[in-house]
Amino acid sequence: MSQDFKQAALDYHEFPRPGKISVELTTPAETSKDLSLAYSPGVAEPVRAIAKDPDAAYRYTAKGNLVAVISNGSAILGLGDLGPLASKPVMEGKALLFKRFAGIDSIDIEVDAESPQAFIDTVARIADTFGGINLEDIKAPECFEIERALIERCEIPVFHDDQHGTAIVTAAGMINALELAGKKLEEAQIVCLGAGAAASACMKLLINMGAKVENIFMLDRKGVIHSGRDDLTPEKAAFATETEKRTLEDAIDGADVFVGLSGPNLLSPENLLKMAESPVVFACANPDPEILPDLARETRSDVIMATGRSDFPNQVNNVLGFPFIFRGALDVRATAINEEMKAAAVIALAELAKQPVTQEVLDAYGLDSLEFGREYILPKATDSRLLNAIASAVANAAVDTGVARLPLPEKYKG
Amino acid sequence: MSQDFKQAALDYHEFPRPGKISVELTTPAETSKDLSLAYSPGVAEPVRAIAKDPDAAYRYTAKGNLVAVISNGSAILGLGDLGPLASKPVMEGKALLFKRFAGIDSIDIEVDAESPQAFIDTVARIADTFGGINLEDIKAPECFEIERALIERCEIPVFHDDQHGTAIVTAAGMINALELAGKKLEEAQIVCLGAGAAASACMKLLINMGAKVENIFMLDRKGVIHSGRDDLTPEKAAFATETEKRTLEDAIDGADVFVGLSGPNLLSPENLLKMAESPVVFACANPDPEILPDLARETRSDVIMATGRSDFPNQVNNVLGFPFIFRGALDVRATAINEEMKAAAVIALAELAKQPVTQEVLDAYGLDSLEFGREYILPKATDSRLLNAIASAVANAAVDTGVARLPLPEKYKG
Repeated sequence: MSQDFKQAALDYHEFPRPGKISVELTTPAETSKDLSLAYSPGVAEPVRAIAKDPDAAYRYTAKGNLVAVISNGSAILGLGDLGPLASKPVMEGKALLFKRFAGIDSIDIEVDAESPQAFIDTVARIADTFGGINLEDIKAPECFEIERALIERCEIPVFHDDQHGTAIVTAAGMINALELAGKKLEEAQIVCLGAGAAASACMKLLINMGAKVENIFMLDRKGVIHSGRDDLTPEKAAFATETEKRTLEDAIDGADVFVGLSGPNLLSPENLLKMAESPVVFACANPDPEILPDLARETRSDVIMATGRSDFPNQVNNVLGFPFIFRGALDVRATAINEEMKAAAVIALAELAKQPVTQEVLDAYGLDSLEFGREYILPKATDSRLLNAIASAVANAAVDTGVARLPLPEKYKG
Repeated sequence: MSQDFKQAALDYHEFPRPGKISVELTTPAETSKDLSLAYSPGVAEPVRAIAKDPDAAYRYTAKGNLVAVISNGSAILGLGDLGPLASKPVMEGKALLFKRFAGIDSIDIEVDAESPQAFIDTVARIADTFGGINLEDIKAPECFEIERALIERCEIPVFHDDQHGTAIVTAAGMINALELAGKKLEEAQIVCLGAGAAASACMKLLINMGAKVENIFMLDRKGVIHSGRDDLTPEKAAFATETEKRTLEDAIDGADVFVGLSGPNLLSPENLLKMAESPVVFACANPDPEILPDLARETRSDVIMATGRSDFPNQVNNVLGFPFIFRGALDVRATAINEEMKAAAVIALAELAKQPVTQEVLDAYGLDSLEFGREYILPKATDSRLLNAIASAVANAAVDTGVARLPLPEKYKG
């Protein structure tokens, strides 16, 4: 980042007033009549209605369209554990994205908890306030325990976006990339460099969608995760395979797919050359990918690449997922975001990239044309069709799998 | 409440969308440039700044103007313990009032905690998210322990409005009522019917402002609180006096002031007749006061009355206090709302009622004139001068007592 850009980012956060979000009124509050309805004595009526039937909270309060973005700041972006308060700009940013892309009211909550259990208890106790909970920037392995416990304790969707949002967008891009490479997910040899929360969620989702666990080699800092290792967390152990391969060099030999969720420049041109033909390389380390697209293409012209960066083609960007996934879940009052809903989001996202792009998108990026292909395997964030396409798929899947508490809205039918 | 009014209150909460508040953006978020500043990668800059200096959160996030309205729903208005979720319309209503009257962003948090300690832990862990915490509708005696512990654990103002907001507005009205009655607070014989959180906060504040504890008779359901009783909580014991008086009838004899925070029709005309001349009667039970103003005036013409109702003169309305008190506290980044700040709010509020009313206020109430006197001892909620008058007094007191972390803003000087 240039100094100018850094200053622009600080200014953006400081002006016109500190931060990026505010709370506003949705009802008139001018006259004393207004106030007698909004507060005492009128407010007693919705209170009584909710005391009688808790579901009335969806009718008379903002709960149903309100998502909390909750973090302990233990894994902020690529910056590490800087604590809850320092994570606030990121969480407010996420709240901004929820509103901007899906009209969801969202508020950040930073939790200063002494243990995962304290974090879980805290969030569970305030959960009724909201219609959904988006967990964010919580480090592994605690994030697994936290998400699992909160899903169990809460009656609203709880979704750790760093895991599942990343996985959904990655899987959508992967499906399209493999189609372009003329390969099948069921047969693809996959190397996953990185074994954190996002990596294991990505691999789990790919497996749910057809990939074979025996075709996946996941690597952590110590190398290939294999069945002979005795230092594995339960999440890593799920990916341990019987293999003689130990290093990235071993694993990459003949691989169809490389997914990087690790660090800068960890995929060398030499290793890229060892991959099978038309290799699919998702180099998602941010801000510096495992291999830069230019270097990859210079190394071999048949590569299909994606990164986490907005300044290269094929950005694996979580904003393609979470706002619309929550929109669909909230619209049918789903009690969870289950595997079927995630898979539906993947397919809808992959499909949208194959639709002809709209003029709106071309204008936003100053392009004359953009067609499904190696440089365009994922929709652009500013594609306004994302909202309906993904929310509809997610809502339909929720209804089909019995986790929806409302019938499918008209707009999502057919 | 009529059926029509009840339905209007439900409709008000359901339309145009459920609830009364929303979250909105304060920065542009249209272009991909905007988004790169609001979120990754630009957001890393304010994150780093806050990690280095926690105070930067006030510069780069919404924290400094954000107040949480937090409840467990254990004492909702006059409705009792209906649980956290049922309290949500009230808490959203409070958030609405914060914004409407003082431009403060406010969000409700309903806490479902199994014990006061669990409530305290939960709120303390999320407190860094906010610039201030307004506790609301928490039953006594738990509310005392909760407020005390949170004030100790949090570096931001924590204020239980049912106690202190009520006390501040009551004390302001009381000062003006006693002036009109030609009496001094230092000498007034005071009967307080009700011994809950609001009652003890009111009496404490009156004592801090000059009333004598030996001149106060507080009554709970069992009668006068006296030093011979062995069933008193510490909060009640603070008001136990050496006395032979046992009943309201005993206590009211010759009293100058009656403060009712109890229930409907508990002050009989017979008891009112026993009071000293120009008696001051604050019958604040809601919605039905301890004595109706018409009956009181029929009983004796020299009474000076206030109630909690908007349809009678002299409404003791918390909205005259909390928005402006927090405004002043936030504007100088006070670490607490201390006794001096509360007293400053009382005096500013009492003073404002003596100023000539503005045309704006007359128009709002359809009045030709309104002058300081028995029918006008407290400002009207729609008086736009409240904001500066009270916030300024509170901010000045915070600076004077050393709890302000910022210098006094220009607008509050002189």
